[in-house]
Amino acid sequence: MKIWSRDEIIARFDVDRAVRMIEQGFIAYSRGTAQVPPVQNFQFADANGDCCVKSAYVDGSQSFAIKVSSGFYDNPKRGLPSNSGFVVLCSATTGVPVALLQDEGWLTCVRTAIAGQLAARVAAPRDVKAIGIIGAGEQARLQLEYLKPVTACRKVHVWSPSEALSASFAEDMTGLGFVVDVQHSAEVVAANTNLIVTATPSRQVLLQSAWIRGGTHITAVGADAAGKQELDPDIVARAAAIVVDSIAQCSRYGEVSHALAAGLIQIDRLTELGAALESGLRVRNDADPMQITIVDLTGVAVQDAQIADSVVVDSI
Amino acid sequence: MKIWSRDEIIARFDVDRAVRMIEQGFIAYSRGTAQVPPVQNFQFADANGDCCVKSAYVDGSQSFAIKVSSGFYDNPKRGLPSNSGFVVLCSATTGVPVALLQDEGWLTCVRTAIAGQLAARVAAPRDVKAIGIIGAGEQARLQLEYLKPVTACRKVHVWSPSEALSASFAEDMTGLGFVVDVQHSAEVVAANTNLIVTATPSRQVLLQSAWIRGGTHITAVGADAAGKQELDPDIVARAAAIVVDSIAQCSRYGEVSHALAAGLIQIDRLTELGAALESGLRVRNDADPMQITIVDLTGVAVQDAQIADSVVVDSI
Repeated sequence: MKIWSRDEIIARFDVDRAVRMIEQGFIAYSRGTAQVPPVQNFQFADANGDCCVKSAYVDGSQSFAIKVSSGFYDNPKRGLPSNSGFVVLCSATTGVPVALLQDEGWLTCVRTAIAGQLAARVAAPRDVKAIGIIGAGEQARLQLEYLKPVTACRKVHVWSPSEALSASFAEDMTGLGFVVDVQHSAEVVAANTNLIVTATPSRQVLLQSAWIRGGTHITAVGADAAGKQELDPDIVARAAAIVVDSIAQCSRYGEVSHALAAGLIQIDRLTELGAALESGLRVRNDADPMQITIVDLTGVAVQDAQIADSVVVDSI
Repeated sequence: MKIWSRDEIIARFDVDRAVRMIEQGFIAYSRGTAQVPPVQNFQFADANGDCCVKSAYVDGSQSFAIKVSSGFYDNPKRGLPSNSGFVVLCSATTGVPVALLQDEGWLTCVRTAIAGQLAARVAAPRDVKAIGIIGAGEQARLQLEYLKPVTACRKVHVWSPSEALSASFAEDMTGLGFVVDVQHSAEVVAANTNLIVTATPSRQVLLQSAWIRGGTHITAVGADAAGKQELDPDIVARAAAIVVDSIAQCSRYGEVSHALAAGLIQIDRLTELGAALESGLRVRNDADPMQITIVDLTGVAVQDAQIADSVVVDSI
């Protein structure tokens, strides 16, 4: 079993290949040509931590993947990052473990940002006036960075609960060629933007439906486990298109779950991202400038399998 | 993350500590003081393989475990063993992966044999006339070897579908101090023994109820996935005590599942091994020489977590 350090993974990483393979992974998932057993979850209340195990096999791949990712939120007090994790790839021909990717969570961050890019490709307005980012952490930064290939817009409004984090976000993203305004509320962000990404661990609504302008697309990344929520469920109900990475997961704990539980929508309103990508069609009617669209991302193990495979491909 | 080879694991292995910790693991599982998310399963029809991911955390442990074990049954044609696997332990305080045990399936084999020992401890007759072993592979050998501490009996009758395998089993087990008769049918084994272990990958009944003498205990190890079966469900129905390692798993795919599906027993007849171990009581009434008892083992992730922890304990 070859062991890959985080630095080796980053050095080998080919973003175009990763995007292509993750897109194929979503398509396989929605087609039913991937095996994705239920996610395993742990909670460590005393240690303020959690862990999930996501495994997947995309039919025809040379390997299947088991990904372990942890978040232990008191780690910074110990001088450790909150997130850690690794991916193991095993041969789909012999079962033998062939690669251990000690990415420390890096691949998870990037595959999530790539899903945001694919979401924007199928659902963002053609003419993005300004990009709104809710949250200013690592994932918020990556989401913005990964929007570059799918929109020419570089105007950004950001809000996060931490002013210090928002300020460093603005500084860093300015360095990547964006023009960033830090706002003092999510409402002001919504008022000024028509492509919004929410990327926080929030457990309460951050964006109210009344604030969302007609014609806006929202990609919601934060609600990846029970109890998390960023969007007013009424936004989901208003949306002309509701895209989810996984109907099974999103209906259990994504943004969509809250709208389903409140009876605001029925499950037949949901379209999987893989189905949208396979169709090659946009889910937004570009002739209707007032449509609101939503993509709800909870993270599917096919992304982990495909991004890991994209790194090691040809080397095993 | 320290990486342990199979040889290092075996060198460090302390059987008494492993037995004690696995017993504690079963007790924690049945008490509900362990986290054991549902098993993840893969099937690779083209490669004649399967894989399962079992994860567990026993409350209070320093680490939690993720175990991956594969069986690819065409591997011997490639000069590879059928089974492979590894265990990763992560800190329950920080989430950081601390140990990778490349045991290639060895720990799974041993923890299964230890469960057989614990089963015999609570349910085997006090006076074992002779031990019956159905199957003659690696797990059958280990089951017999691990019975040594819980019975003085060394007389063995073995049957397996492969006469060659039975013969080498007899030779090897004779070397361990047993007196082994190879029998030409499972029926003859049953006629001559009152402690039987079934350890095959069978998908059909190997032991008929009519063959089982009063006073016999049977530990069934083989039925660890859907479609597998070794026992006539009527044996389960006749048993005075039906012990299972996991009610949740055994009622889905253990020997017990067939008796439940046929309406021969109700789920309230099942006792978990951990509950029996915690009580300190035997599940057999030793005053009744005609009682039949059954222990149905499907393999629970607490075993994997505890045996791995027993190896690395004090080193991380």
